[in-house]
Amino acid sequence: MGKKNKNAISPTRDKDYPMWYQEVVKESQMAEKSPVRGCMVIKPWGYALWENIMSSLDVMFKKTDVKNAYFPLFIPLSYLEKEAEHVEGFAKECAVVTHHRLEKGENNGLVPAGKLAEPFVVRPTSETIIGESMSRWISSYRDLPLLLNQWANVVRWEMRTRIFLRTSEFLWQEGHTAHFSEQEAKDRTKMMLDIYADFVENYLAIPVIKGAKSSMERFPGAVDTICIEAMMQDKKALQVGTSHFLGQNFARSSNIKFQTADKKEELAWTTSWGVSTRMIGGMIMVHGDDDGVIMPPKIAPAHVVLLPIIKQHDEKRKIMEYTHNIADMLQNRTYHGKKIIVEIDARDIGGARGWEWIKKGIPVRVEIGLRDIADDSVFAARRDKSPGDKYSIKKQDFINGIENLLDDIQKNLFNKAFAFKKNNTFTIDDKNYFYDFFKLKRNGINKGFAMAFWCGSDKCETKIKEDLSVTIRCLPFENNKEKGKCIYCNNSNSQRVVFAKAY
Amino acid sequence: MGKKNKNAISPTRDKDYPMWYQEVVKESQMAEKSPVRGCMVIKPWGYALWENIMSSLDVMFKKTDVKNAYFPLFIPLSYLEKEAEHVEGFAKECAVVTHHRLEKGENNGLVPAGKLAEPFVVRPTSETIIGESMSRWISSYRDLPLLLNQWANVVRWEMRTRIFLRTSEFLWQEGHTAHFSEQEAKDRTKMMLDIYADFVENYLAIPVIKGAKSSMERFPGAVDTICIEAMMQDKKALQVGTSHFLGQNFARSSNIKFQTADKKEELAWTTSWGVSTRMIGGMIMVHGDDDGVIMPPKIAPAHVVLLPIIKQHDEKRKIMEYTHNIADMLQNRTYHGKKIIVEIDARDIGGARGWEWIKKGIPVRVEIGLRDIADDSVFAARRDKSPGDKYSIKKQDFINGIENLLDDIQKNLFNKAFAFKKNNTFTIDDKNYFYDFFKLKRNGINKGFAMAFWCGSDKCETKIKEDLSVTIRCLPFENNKEKGKCIYCNNSNSQRVVFAKAY
Repeated sequence: MGKKNKNAISPTRDKDYPMWYQEVVKESQMAEKSPVRGCMVIKPWGYALWENIMSSLDVMFKKTDVKNAYFPLFIPLSYLEKEAEHVEGFAKECAVVTHHRLEKGENNGLVPAGKLAEPFVVRPTSETIIGESMSRWISSYRDLPLLLNQWANVVRWEMRTRIFLRTSEFLWQEGHTAHFSEQEAKDRTKMMLDIYADFVENYLAIPVIKGAKSSMERFPGAVDTICIEAMMQDKKALQVGTSHFLGQNFARSSNIKFQTADKKEELAWTTSWGVSTRMIGGMIMVHGDDDGVIMPPKIAPAHVVLLPIIKQHDEKRKIMEYTHNIADMLQNRTYHGKKIIVEIDARDIGGARGWEWIKKGIPVRVEIGLRDIADDSVFAARRDKSPGDKYSIKKQDFINGIENLLDDIQKNLFNKAFAFKKNNTFTIDDKNYFYDFFKLKRNGINKGFAMAFWCGSDKCETKIKEDLSVTIRCLPFENNKEKGKCIYCNNSNSQRVVFAKAY
Repeated sequence: MGKKNKNAISPTRDKDYPMWYQEVVKESQMAEKSPVRGCMVIKPWGYALWENIMSSLDVMFKKTDVKNAYFPLFIPLSYLEKEAEHVEGFAKECAVVTHHRLEKGENNGLVPAGKLAEPFVVRPTSETIIGESMSRWISSYRDLPLLLNQWANVVRWEMRTRIFLRTSEFLWQEGHTAHFSEQEAKDRTKMMLDIYADFVENYLAIPVIKGAKSSMERFPGAVDTICIEAMMQDKKALQVGTSHFLGQNFARSSNIKFQTADKKEELAWTTSWGVSTRMIGGMIMVHGDDDGVIMPPKIAPAHVVLLPIIKQHDEKRKIMEYTHNIADMLQNRTYHGKKIIVEIDARDIGGARGWEWIKKGIPVRVEIGLRDIADDSVFAARRDKSPGDKYSIKKQDFINGIENLLDDIQKNLFNKAFAFKKNNTFTIDDKNYFYDFFKLKRNGINKGFAMAFWCGSDKCETKIKEDLSVTIRCLPFENNKEKGKCIYCNNSNSQRVVFAKAY
């Protein structure tokens, strides 16, 4: 860790934010582009993070009686066609399976054979195929609510891809529920958004704004889409999770009916909600610095890396013994109900070793050399401080204080991100200022979120989008009582909404 | 649970084994056929079992330093073509993606559009795409071994499908490792088979035979395939898991090279190994009886169901209180390191309730009525005994004894299956007898496994397969020293192998 003034990531955020993001992902060894167009390979360090995300969310879902299941990857075209808006939204960009065999063609190369009578699409989302099952599983009010979730891969044929943020194939969970009443379905829609917000704020340490989408930004086929939006360090917005109240639209198209207690036949009310590997991109963009990724401790694949510093061969045994002893003591402790995970990196590769862990974003690094042992100490550094900011601490104090240290990092990351969002969110009521605000940007970095009035019309929203590539991120649930004049058309009785450039 | 002489599943195993299997799966609510050809829907009770399988195996893999990752669903045709045998084996039956968009065609129906320059196949297995990553990730002996695993869906376009056993899409894990030496790769191949055998015997309670595949039954592209084989109750064999030593075949075709410590360039040695949702079919067929599925306690989605028996409305509060109290006490205990999972089923649907849980295979059922409360008791039944075999036991004794009870059921299931396999495995050295043995069957039930000598030639193996639809399941690792004359060609110096009809 000899480098003092140079950053580990080039370019810095300031110089070229999009390129910084690419480099951070690459250097963190979390994922990489695959030679398969638009798809990514999630490498072990990135996948371990996704495993932690899955297991944490899964516990939260199950506490609300959601059960996991698995539905087919392939969706017949006829299913997709059932819901008019839905097909418009998803037919544009999907992988179509048309053949079920390969044969040797000219030059001995393989060519598709065995044409299917009806092509399939690889699921872009599963409302229609799960709806088909629901229609068979539900017959009485006693079968409701039906609360399902699946962890799966989905495919949307994206033209411009960016790793984790927008890839042709991605991993996600999609919840699908059916209810006997409109209110219960609406409550579930909100409940799942609250779970997402809780998880994203308390595990990923990303502050979010909860709100409703405008009708233009709604999920195709939904009555109402609510979402959580976060601010990245380039001051663009990222939609981190969405929850959809689908009304009776999908129940109608999939024929999900039930008999009420008084023997009437009614359509069920359904919801769907999802978060994806996109969250990982958000985590990187919110917390990362010019030295790489910073992992929030509550979700990090590992908490502490021990770096034995062995200068002479004859020191090795003593230093490794001390190192393993510390690892054992740390691993016997728990952090928020899970074991503390310790890596020991004894590779003899010089300064590159420490920088590798910095770029991977492990919360705490600990160097251990002969001098530390003589003093019964360790030399520690936290990832949320600058790389050179290291301190000596008595071994036992370090071990006893590990949970507090991790919690402090966790809180610090959230507070920093919260302050950043707050400082870059502006109340704007002047149209010219609003236009200037969104036109100015430097090296891919924008000026922030604008809280401005909007009359509710598609027309004003469209104009602003055309002029500035700015969208309404959400109609926030909090502090939404104020009324004023639409930033575009000046109509009064407008609501303050969040405008931003977005991923 | 009033029915005494009638079984819950019709037909019984004896009458029509294949149909019995279908009915058991259906009645257990574990999975169902989907309207998408050859694909299944895994319902919550079946998926919860798969989750337990995944989490148990995952811990075992990780203890051997395997790390999880995720690779693209789509494989370019050119990748599949790289390994000659591999393409022969997998090109026959795969889903081919040829377009990336849908457009409105005649009659407003959707038609594929946006033809891809190079089609993709949906992965039938990932050797080639993971090989491509390995070729980039490995450059020095220091990068070895590389030990990867992914939990994923795969697709093989099967003509005749059977739920869990052979479906077009299924869920599995596929491990892929690269090593610097032949021996290390061979050791890893064996290590993973041992893990599978350990898991299948100790969790799924299915006794297995470990052995090597004949060259005809090998994985396409492998140098050596080793496997675990189990006997179903129709006395057919099911291959439960396989582990492949790939030699340098895939390293050569994917260009996975490394520099040795003395600066020479060499090809890596690779392995792959996998188990799938097929195991669930095996579990059902080994343990299930004419009343449905029987879940081994160590892997069951839930261990105990409490069935309050409320005859009068005014009993309800008292009985439910007693029931919840028992649930709380049970849930505070652990069984093999995991929490004991208790279901309370208070639905007022009469006898159907108990039968539902029998058909689902929950290890222990407990009825609770006023009389039991008066006696501070419960009325218990274990799934591995007959449905009417219930006993009264003091509440506290039941709770204190729950782990022993579950262990007893687990052992009983294994022992029963072990005896069944043993009693239906025959040493056969006479050709006529061998032919009769495999020709006779009744209602889909065969006579068993034949341990017979085989000379090692493809020719004899092929003849037997053509004549009897019987294959060599494996060349067993144990008790394989005996030499004798080939059952088909009479050549001496032959080895005793396992012949059986197989799924």
